[in-house]
Amino acid sequence: MSRVVGLEEIRGLLPGVDLLKIIEEGFVAYSQGQVVVPPVGELVFDDPPGEAHIKYGYVKGHPYYVIKVASGFYDNAKLGLPTGQGLMLVFSQQTGVLEAVLLDEGYLTDMRTAAAGAVAARHLAPLEVRRIGILGAGVQARLQLDLLRGVVSCRRALVWAPEPEEREPYLKAFALSDFEVEMAEKASDVARECNLIVTATPATTPLLRAGEIKPGTHITAIGSDTAEKIELDPEILGKADLVVVDSLPQSESRGEVFRAVEAGTLARERVKELGAVIAGRNPARENPQSLTVCDLTGVAVQDIQIATAILREKYKKESRRRP
Amino acid sequence: MSRVVGLEEIRGLLPGVDLLKIIEEGFVAYSQGQVVVPPVGELVFDDPPGEAHIKYGYVKGHPYYVIKVASGFYDNAKLGLPTGQGLMLVFSQQTGVLEAVLLDEGYLTDMRTAAAGAVAARHLAPLEVRRIGILGAGVQARLQLDLLRGVVSCRRALVWAPEPEEREPYLKAFALSDFEVEMAEKASDVARECNLIVTATPATTPLLRAGEIKPGTHITAIGSDTAEKIELDPEILGKADLVVVDSLPQSESRGEVFRAVEAGTLARERVKELGAVIAGRNPARENPQSLTVCDLTGVAVQDIQIATAILREKYKKESRRRP
Repeated sequence: MSRVVGLEEIRGLLPGVDLLKIIEEGFVAYSQGQVVVPPVGELVFDDPPGEAHIKYGYVKGHPYYVIKVASGFYDNAKLGLPTGQGLMLVFSQQTGVLEAVLLDEGYLTDMRTAAAGAVAARHLAPLEVRRIGILGAGVQARLQLDLLRGVVSCRRALVWAPEPEEREPYLKAFALSDFEVEMAEKASDVARECNLIVTATPATTPLLRAGEIKPGTHITAIGSDTAEKIELDPEILGKADLVVVDSLPQSESRGEVFRAVEAGTLARERVKELGAVIAGRNPARENPQSLTVCDLTGVAVQDIQIATAILREKYKKESRRRP
Repeated sequence: MSRVVGLEEIRGLLPGVDLLKIIEEGFVAYSQGQVVVPPVGELVFDDPPGEAHIKYGYVKGHPYYVIKVASGFYDNAKLGLPTGQGLMLVFSQQTGVLEAVLLDEGYLTDMRTAAAGAVAARHLAPLEVRRIGILGAGVQARLQLDLLRGVVSCRRALVWAPEPEEREPYLKAFALSDFEVEMAEKASDVARECNLIVTATPATTPLLRAGEIKPGTHITAIGSDTAEKIELDPEILGKADLVVVDSLPQSESRGEVFRAVEAGTLARERVKELGAVIAGRNPARENPQSLTVCDLTGVAVQDIQIATAILREKYKKESRRRP
């Protein structure tokens, strides 16, 4: 029978995975056309309101194909349940046999999203990060800071929480860590103080204005993954020296780049793909005064890579246990 | 943690399900527009050749939504593995929570397909079935005969096997049953002898000719579920008094009706949907001399219904076990 891996076991396996490396490899394969990712399947529910997405695909020549189901049911909080639900299925690309059911409850999606932010920072952040700025104070805003530990040496962070009640839990989460975290009064304080900024909010109106951003700053925009959400003034992308996205096709219908192109501040042909930047075929950061923006909307290759890595790690542990 | 139900347990639960009833209810809900079924997701693999399909959806107002993954990897036989692989996932429509993973390995798909044939016979077969004819001798051709037991009293069957080596296993499968099974030399023998015929082969050229079919016959065509497969001469559908399909939209691109409309023998507006026939809004069988054809290509509502029923049956058994 196929392996069924629960959340606790998945949490135990992930530290054995070189997360940033596999996500980088995924982006490179994606930008090189080695990844088959059909359009996302979608179910919408009216009562109670909810939606489910099915993302699936494979890297050509790899051993597995992956199907991810992720849903959002917005009344779940009333029932004491997480809004997000989901799982990942890993199948053999050779035989179709179901190798594993990863009952990750959305954890692997959170982690692969956080890892993409760290990968963007590794390739685009200023060489000397003065202070890390985080807009947002939810799960993803915590993970973004947490995973930056592996790619920048700066340990000072300024965080702006959209909701005041999020401040305490955020500070608490990092209280015993090596990060020195302060909370900002306004989003513009973050723009003034920080030269590596990550935005991870569900905002639908811009949080940062072009005039506030200092030269030499890199911004990674995580929150906007639909046509409606937006965190950055389109002028910021307009004046950026380099604009990068995880997926050029997706940037035609969602995210900051979609909005900036629509607003007429950004020419589409100026946008580079992250996998190409990683592979070194694009000038990433030309001078210390450049403003760079990386807009991530999330691509299925991240799911494929993280699910595959968890299964490999499980097999590795199992084979070690054998005499 | 979500329930994970293996094949053996599923086999044990299915007898507690009123299979024909739930499939009938599914077809009726589908024909009444109560079922949300987005387009099928598809992955194609080149080396080795294979394909995976993702079918999903829900009946409005029901407690669950269902995602089914089914694949065919055609080199599996060389490895001693079944060509078909798959599973069904059952989620709450209220919260998105994954209720159960049904590791059915394609069994529930076989059973819901067989049940649709029995449902078609219940509503369209002649009142007096002289002899049951089966074209095909694979798993589905066995299940079709097996499930007809619940809807017709006739226990005499004449079976044509496309491959001679399939004859013995088929006869053996029914040796101890209440069916008296004989093997036919030619498909046309079945047409001559039988007035309830089920075709369940992967044929790509017609097996039955219009001139061979006697008045008062009902034919259920199971095998053709793509644009390429065909079991019935398009003239048969042309001269039929009633032509029924499980899904009008699907019949526009696959199956016998698609081919007959394309060949110009059948006018699309003459075709009725099975759910409407079951609900009694169509004249099913007007006189004992009518020729009727039911073309089934398989719809996701069957998967939704059978997966839901298995989960309900499991919950029922669990609650019985509690003191």
